Amino acid sequence: MKTIEICDVTLRDGAQGEGISFSEEDKLGIATVLARLGVGMIEAGAPGMNARDASLFEKLASLPCFPAVSAFGQTRRAGMKAGEDPALRALLDSGARSLTVYGKSHPLHAEKILRVTREENLSMIRESVAFLKKAGRRVLFDAEHFFDGYKADPAYALASLEAAAEAGADVLVLCDTNGGNFPGEIGKTVGAVCAAFPGKSIGIHCHNDMGLAVACTLVAVKAGAVHVQGSFTGFGERCGNTSLCQLIPSLQLKLGYACILPEEMPRLALAARYVADVSNTTLPSNTPYVGESAFAHKAGTHVDAMLKLPGAYEHIDPEAVGNERRAIASELAGRAAVYEKIRRVFPEIERRSPEVDLVLGEIKRLERNGWQYESAEASLELLIRRSLNRIPRFYRLEFFDVTDNYPFSEGTTGCLATVKIFVGEKAALESAEGDGPVHALDMALRKCLTSFYPAITGVRLVDYKVRVITPNEATAARVRVLMNSTDGVRTWTTVGTSRDIIRASWKALVDSMEYFLIGRGISGPGE
Amino acid sequence: MKTIEICDVTLRDGAQGEGISFSEEDKLGIATVLARLGVGMIEAGAPGMNARDASLFEKLASLPCFPAVSAFGQTRRAGMKAGEDPALRALLDSGARSLTVYGKSHPLHAEKILRVTREENLSMIRESVAFLKKAGRRVLFDAEHFFDGYKADPAYALASLEAAAEAGADVLVLCDTNGGNFPGEIGKTVGAVCAAFPGKSIGIHCHNDMGLAVACTLVAVKAGAVHVQGSFTGFGERCGNTSLCQLIPSLQLKLGYACILPEEMPRLALAARYVADVSNTTLPSNTPYVGESAFAHKAGTHVDAMLKLPGAYEHIDPEAVGNERRAIASELAGRAAVYEKIRRVFPEIERRSPEVDLVLGEIKRLERNGWQYESAEASLELLIRRSLNRIPRFYRLEFFDVTDNYPFSEGTTGCLATVKIFVGEKAALESAEGDGPVHALDMALRKCLTSFYPAITGVRLVDYKVRVITPNEATAARVRVLMNSTDGVRTWTTVGTSRDIIRASWKALVDSMEYFLIGRGISGPGE
Repeated sequence: MKTIEICDVTLRDGAQGEGISFSEEDKLGIATVLARLGVGMIEAGAPGMNARDASLFEKLASLPCFPAVSAFGQTRRAGMKAGEDPALRALLDSGARSLTVYGKSHPLHAEKILRVTREENLSMIRESVAFLKKAGRRVLFDAEHFFDGYKADPAYALASLEAAAEAGADVLVLCDTNGGNFPGEIGKTVGAVCAAFPGKSIGIHCHNDMGLAVACTLVAVKAGAVHVQGSFTGFGERCGNTSLCQLIPSLQLKLGYACILPEEMPRLALAARYVADVSNTTLPSNTPYVGESAFAHKAGTHVDAMLKLPGAYEHIDPEAVGNERRAIASELAGRAAVYEKIRRVFPEIERRSPEVDLVLGEIKRLERNGWQYESAEASLELLIRRSLNRIPRFYRLEFFDVTDNYPFSEGTTGCLATVKIFVGEKAALESAEGDGPVHALDMALRKCLTSFYPAITGVRLVDYKVRVITPNEATAARVRVLMNSTDGVRTWTTVGTSRDIIRASWKALVDSMEYFLIGRGISGPGE
Repeated sequence: MKTIEICDVTLRDGAQGEGISFSEEDKLGIATVLARLGVGMIEAGAPGMNARDASLFEKLASLPCFPAVSAFGQTRRAGMKAGEDPALRALLDSGARSLTVYGKSHPLHAEKILRVTREENLSMIRESVAFLKKAGRRVLFDAEHFFDGYKADPAYALASLEAAAEAGADVLVLCDTNGGNFPGEIGKTVGAVCAAFPGKSIGIHCHNDMGLAVACTLVAVKAGAVHVQGSFTGFGERCGNTSLCQLIPSLQLKLGYACILPEEMPRLALAARYVADVSNTTLPSNTPYVGESAFAHKAGTHVDAMLKLPGAYEHIDPEAVGNERRAIASELAGRAAVYEKIRRVFPEIERRSPEVDLVLGEIKRLERNGWQYESAEASLELLIRRSLNRIPRFYRLEFFDVTDNYPFSEGTTGCLATVKIFVGEKAALESAEGDGPVHALDMALRKCLTSFYPAITGVRLVDYKVRVITPNEATAARVRVLMNSTDGVRTWTTVGTSRDIIRASWKALVDSMEYFLIGRGISGPGE
């Protein structure tokens, strides 16, 4: 079984997609999830081009995913020694084991964009790679515009690879930077390069400007490429990069290449949804392999045929990639999946127990109303406890009231929340100002709870996301709020949904605090 | 120049996509738009399988698009004469010039799903095609599961085609119904079929379950297929069909095939957005050729390079498909990109003018505060106008006040907004209830403005997105709101940023209305 090194560029090339903007936390989370899947290489950032990436690599260095992490940069500047180029030094300072430098393979681009001679461009490649190799790192050379360059001047394009190879580059990555080459062209050129550099690892980096990035990448692998670059869900400059979540199952499950850990393949869909969530993007429901509709059967004839001949309208078993078959008309959701969740909270409940149906029914009802528990395990646990009536009653909300004014006078934020709760017979009424309505509400609820449950002061919200789920209704749309909380040791995610963003946030807030109290073994006032 | 017949199945196979549900009006609109583009064949429905489609064909018959319209159905039922099958009669009754019948090419499917012998299946194909041909129509045979059938039993798969050909079928369409075949396999099999049926028109119908439908279709055309089926923006069962809006430009602009009217090619992007809108789907912004980001450049190095070498990061001229090049005005981009934007609003401003620096300084200041204009062209135009003090003053906000209560009494939503504005010397004070605070504010502002600017009633918000930009501060995080508005003809996007989601939404709302008024040439009260 031939091994293909998968290099995920979500955090670097992917970040160049329109509308993508990662926080440091987002990046650490994505790198961790991809490393766990067994993605061999994770291009985390460009420390020499982006100052903020330096601190990112410091944080990455202490994580278990670090051995897979690589840093990206360009060849040395014209007229400068490699060792004097601060950008190349920043690459080394990242501490990453693998370093990727990109350079020009198209003579026109060297002359018009870098404004250097063809010879200087080759020196820039050679010296940059040599400098990084001397420091003992694994070095990849990304040959930008390689395929267009090869069409314009094959000798020069090959010379650019030769410069990198001579200097010791471990992988020569051929890039279709503009995404304008057809699979046939890609295959032929990759084959020619493999023949010209026997024994050298060849990589492929495609863009999706014709909707062919996955096809081009497959053809390149067939022609001999052993290193594949793409972003996990496909976003990136313009039309994006090769979508790895679409490519990997074809390579591994259908063509027999080794790409990621086989035992992790059933977590592929989950990982894709995680990356989409953290990027605040939507994974189109018809995304091959991992989309929600990828195995959803709508035509009556198809649903019927599937009963007579399982697999009649499926090319693989959806469970192989962690997805599920759905007959759209008849709402058959995954009982088995729900049982797995229940068993984690109440191990004594049996698979056939009516309690499983009770929870399943409640999940279906809520999902029809726009709830979604995939990224909110803590809320799911609370839902299970509530459906089964096995949850302490920590307090009862009497009311909340939020006001927001503009303009506002000095010494106030203009945004005030008041919350009244009962804990047993005892009432608490507190007000708080906040930067916005949700912040004010958070503060006021905390003030109410702290006198009864002082441990609450240790809980901190670390992330807050909002997703509009029925966008076509514009400002009357339903929204879903995801909150990440921590007590310094554990981190958990809760969800809230409503047409009113304040009320959706309230629900996620309430879940966050209840989940914490339960986890600490704290019980309610003993009703 | 070789002609490829494009057959759009959006209204039939496309309608089987999850969440797709067309009204009759929708269908008439889509058929009209596609026929105008020059799409040769439009599969409008299945009158024998779906009762409502009969009335659809009556309406279509009076439209100019009707000559391109085709109807879809299955082969006669087992044990029935073709002339007695009401579904085949309904096909004829549709009045469509071209009729498509699908039948089984995989022996297992004939046996297990239709539950007929292999021989009876061939008779069903032969007699159905013959019956429709006798009525003088053009007949296409859709060979379902052809590629899987050909793998399982090539002789039988070819026999199913032979049955249709003998009976006079005009086109034999080979279907990869499960979307599980790779381009290489498709190409080889199409080639073999073309050789086996010299002179017969061969068609191709692919599904996107591996993200390869466009690639498979291109390979089939290269191997001799002259008829291509797909849905316009790619939706359909599971992962959808071949996306025609991605396929057509590659075939026609890059490979030299004649598919649609050449003079209509610059309306391709518009047509794709129309189909997406009418289907109530979102065209992902990174859709090849036609997506909003398809020619959007974000990396500073790319934007810079495009100025030195136009086309450096583009595989075609975006105008060829009716799209446009955009330099995303983000911190990653620079002065050049900003100047491009200014020039579109005020063509007389020179590249070196101090006004460019004024705008650039303002953008940088705002971006440091979390603003981001990359997806909000309308707000960017207003920012340019405001920085240069070249904007009418439509009104002045005196105050707004929002309250949100829980629980709330019956007959109210618990969420109320009050807005007071001045237009010149005249005040307007209005209150409105909403599903949430932003909805209430939207309603109240509209009520205030309508008396002064009645055209405002034609503006509708169609999308609303929230992004948390400093998530680590959790509920005190800064949020960015994006709003999409339309007046029925144009669509524009505005942005607002604040720590307070209500105030961020307010800013986006204000921009949306001002942008509309400016576009309509409406001026303020003359201050």
